Amino acid sequence: MRTLFHVWLQPQSRKIRLLLLEKGLDFDLQIEKTWERRTDFLSLNPAGEVPVLIDTNGAVLSGAYAISEYLEESYGQPDFLGRDVVQRAETRRLVTWFDIKFSREVSDNLVGEKMVKRLQRSGEPNGPAIRAGLINIHYHLDYIEFLLEKRNWLAGEEFSQADMTAAAQLSTVDYIGDVPWDKHPGAKAWYARIKSRPSFKSLLDERMPGQYPAKHYANVDF
Amino acid sequence: MRTLFHVWLQPQSRKIRLLLLEKGLDFDLQIEKTWERRTDFLSLNPAGEVPVLIDTNGAVLSGAYAISEYLEESYGQPDFLGRDVVQRAETRRLVTWFDIKFSREVSDNLVGEKMVKRLQRSGEPNGPAIRAGLINIHYHLDYIEFLLEKRNWLAGEEFSQADMTAAAQLSTVDYIGDVPWDKHPGAKAWYARIKSRPSFKSLLDERMPGQYPAKHYANVDF
Repeated sequence: MRTLFHVWLQPQSRKIRLLLLEKGLDFDLQIEKTWERRTDFLSLNPAGEVPVLIDTNGAVLSGAYAISEYLEESYGQPDFLGRDVVQRAETRRLVTWFDIKFSREVSDNLVGEKMVKRLQRSGEPNGPAIRAGLINIHYHLDYIEFLLEKRNWLAGEEFSQADMTAAAQLSTVDYIGDVPWDKHPGAKAWYARIKSRPSFKSLLDERMPGQYPAKHYANVDF
Repeated sequence: MRTLFHVWLQPQSRKIRLLLLEKGLDFDLQIEKTWERRTDFLSLNPAGEVPVLIDTNGAVLSGAYAISEYLEESYGQPDFLGRDVVQRAETRRLVTWFDIKFSREVSDNLVGEKMVKRLQRSGEPNGPAIRAGLINIHYHLDYIEFLLEKRNWLAGEEFSQADMTAAAQLSTVDYIGDVPWDKHPGAKAWYARIKSRPSFKSLLDERMPGQYPAKHYANVDF
């Protein structure tokens, strides 16, 4: 059986979970408290980070970039990058947008400050960072709506890794109730479509220890 | 003709320059002062970041991830990811290591604090960050040496994007003279091999305005 090492509310692990489920690939989940720096885990991934996937063939894959491309190369159909090289580049541009830019400007400031620091006992939340995150998220929701004016999904006509990456990131912020959906009805409608996919259910069922999600978090109608 | 938008000492732009040259693809370079947020550039890449490549077919590719994968898919030979899916995953794991982890732990703290802030007039260098960068770089050079104990190049027997990514990152730190090569002879020997490749010459010839490089920067024997 495949094993995916992940940790609560880690966006890139959530993206890989979605990708595995959308491809119809079975896997076991194993929580890895990366901040404990467990020796056996460091021998799998010296970077000490999740996601890490052990595939059925025994291959150990580390990091969302390596894992997502490996899954597309090894289990191509259904494909979540796109049909031609330019479409695939557009999907990957948006993966970077959400995994790097959104993460830096929004989720690190909100989930990182409010939740990850508490989980790892690594300090007090930083007020200015939280305020920056609450402002920045509007620009990202606007950008999602801008893309959806001309497209069915974020990268084009097909549901892709761009949608999974954005939804995985947003789901962690939504867990703590910091996504202002009511001011962004277009982004909300897109997220509702993703929430109703069977692959998303395991993310909506996840609970971080000691912290219940926002009331609407798991509702497909929210 | 292809055009690559880049800016001085930006590691990911340097990686793409190496990749284009190693693949034998011609291109013009155009400096983009991203912090000026030029409207025409934002219309190419709304993220406002380099690298951005306009290919001969007119396609606009944004971000090192999208560009590097596009170049491998469009101009496959020579290939710099690897022959099989597991080898390719290993290359990509190390691309993440250097573009994300090394960047966060070393180059952002050194080049970011000392050079980028000056270039963008965005504040004073942060002393504790610089000290952290000077400590962290030893761990990364150790890791390079650990990999090279059993391998010819970082990801395996072949020169790959892992080497290009690591060398591009290190070259920016080396420009300001902050790489302690003398304490890491194995990493130094690997970097000397890369410096002697024709593709690396344009990086060694580059000069940032108002800042000469460290004396040994452009020497293949250093």
